[in-house]
Amino acid sequence: MKLLYPTSLALDIKSLEGFAASLHPYDVKQTIPEDLIDAEVLVTWCNSADNLKDAASRMKNLKWIQSLAAGPNDVLNAGFDASRITVTTGSGLHDYTVAEHTLGLLLNAARKFYEMRDYQLQGQWPQHLGGPQPDRPKGKFTSLRGANLLIWGFGNIAKVLTPHLRGLGANVKGVARSSGVRDGVEVLSEDQLPKALAETDALVMILPGSESTKNALNAERLNQLPNHAWVVNVGRGTSIDEDALVKALNEDRIGGAALDVFVQEPLPKESSLWKAKNCIISPHAAGGRPQGAEGLIAYNLRRFLAGQELKNVI
Amino acid sequence: MKLLYPTSLALDIKSLEGFAASLHPYDVKQTIPEDLIDAEVLVTWCNSADNLKDAASRMKNLKWIQSLAAGPNDVLNAGFDASRITVTTGSGLHDYTVAEHTLGLLLNAARKFYEMRDYQLQGQWPQHLGGPQPDRPKGKFTSLRGANLLIWGFGNIAKVLTPHLRGLGANVKGVARSSGVRDGVEVLSEDQLPKALAETDALVMILPGSESTKNALNAERLNQLPNHAWVVNVGRGTSIDEDALVKALNEDRIGGAALDVFVQEPLPKESSLWKAKNCIISPHAAGGRPQGAEGLIAYNLRRFLAGQELKNVI
Repeated sequence: MKLLYPTSLALDIKSLEGFAASLHPYDVKQTIPEDLIDAEVLVTWCNSADNLKDAASRMKNLKWIQSLAAGPNDVLNAGFDASRITVTTGSGLHDYTVAEHTLGLLLNAARKFYEMRDYQLQGQWPQHLGGPQPDRPKGKFTSLRGANLLIWGFGNIAKVLTPHLRGLGANVKGVARSSGVRDGVEVLSEDQLPKALAETDALVMILPGSESTKNALNAERLNQLPNHAWVVNVGRGTSIDEDALVKALNEDRIGGAALDVFVQEPLPKESSLWKAKNCIISPHAAGGRPQGAEGLIAYNLRRFLAGQELKNVI
Repeated sequence: MKLLYPTSLALDIKSLEGFAASLHPYDVKQTIPEDLIDAEVLVTWCNSADNLKDAASRMKNLKWIQSLAAGPNDVLNAGFDASRITVTTGSGLHDYTVAEHTLGLLLNAARKFYEMRDYQLQGQWPQHLGGPQPDRPKGKFTSLRGANLLIWGFGNIAKVLTPHLRGLGANVKGVARSSGVRDGVEVLSEDQLPKALAETDALVMILPGSESTKNALNAERLNQLPNHAWVVNVGRGTSIDEDALVKALNEDRIGGAALDVFVQEPLPKESSLWKAKNCIISPHAAGGRPQGAEGLIAYNLRRFLAGQELKNVI
């Protein structure tokens, strides 16, 4: 039984030895070589659409694809035979790195590092951002301490992020399809959004991309946020109505936006987001570096060989 | 017995009532009015040098000055009679806010928000900073996770900062005049710096301003850092040899610098730091907003009235 692993990231292959499977590296920039085409397991990371399509048509023994991406749309769109091939995601491998980036974006927003940078590039000292200043004035988002943070899309990333925010003194609530208490966090349902948004200093969006989340943050919901509230999006660009967001930013109806994801990536030259007021553009940089992939592969490989249900099945 | 409190910041004066003292607001932008000149206690925040000098010559009954600044050089240089007046500092009131700013600067450095901003202002998508990328490659500072952080000047701010850094996965050590274990952190003495600097991914400087800390980070010590190491300074500008730092930055001998303090503030137009490579200029914005001042004033006022030793005596 052959397992093919990609050379598009560094993997500690020794930690995968000891199973009744032979482990073979492959180059995601090439089609699968003839001598590996009978593999039963394919691990994917940054494969091209064309090469995935080629694999879908030629790998007749394939039974399981382990993607290392959290949302493996590339694999799902390649034409693999879903009736005999199980696809598992890399959900969980990106939690820490996305949480760290999100925390950085929130501090960038609160501490105005982007505005300081603008002044620096002009060789100017922004006196209004430094020196003595009021401590957490009403109607401004200047610190995580005491700030009301609302995380819309309360999954694994939110669970990793929350303790850091709370450690810094923020009040954290979540929003998800069903309400309840998760990991000690009060999670609201979406029908409670109007009241929750009105009390929010910073809204963190970690929604997956799907038809049901499209334009989740629209003009109406942007209006429900206080004028000083920030929006941070590290989920999927489609969950925000970008035109409505640009309008809200430029009319000072919200405090700002720090965006790592966009409807179209790279963000097109002509997008109004580039120059919208208090808008921070991060080039889909929050994740993209799976951590602990070997552990997930080993866990699922053992279960695969034992005929057990796999983890992270789509 | 009169206590004068400044109106240069919002104080919850109700929380100071109940002592055998009358509480009087005063405007730090004016000289002390004649009817308050017999006060025994003066709380200061952002007083001008001239008005402090005036107070020093006119307030004959003054026994105690409570500054809300961590390092009240303004009060010490105003000519108050040290033989009869006790000066206490606002040490501790700035720990959280400086720690939060420091964490933000570290994430700005690791996640390259400043470089993203430069691209954004050009309307360009920095592809090399986003998308799939190696996870924490050797010889780069791209995440706090697994990074070796060295905090030089291991006082109260460092103690507040450390748990956040550790929570994010960083390895934290300190450097101070005497070695030992403080708050569960290994603190080295300065003679152990050469080895410690060589293993550092990010050096956080929180040294006070004094003759003994002048140019603490000089050319020789900058050379002991790895080429990828970042320097973050939230202590005092004088603790870094700025010329040596500019040289190290522009010759790629260190990874970058995020500076909140400078030898001269505002940073002069002609400083080479403005355009040094990978240099982040923050306008002395880490502190400047005392938190919990009422608690410190009340604590010290009770002790003052009871004839006990005050907290934070210089």
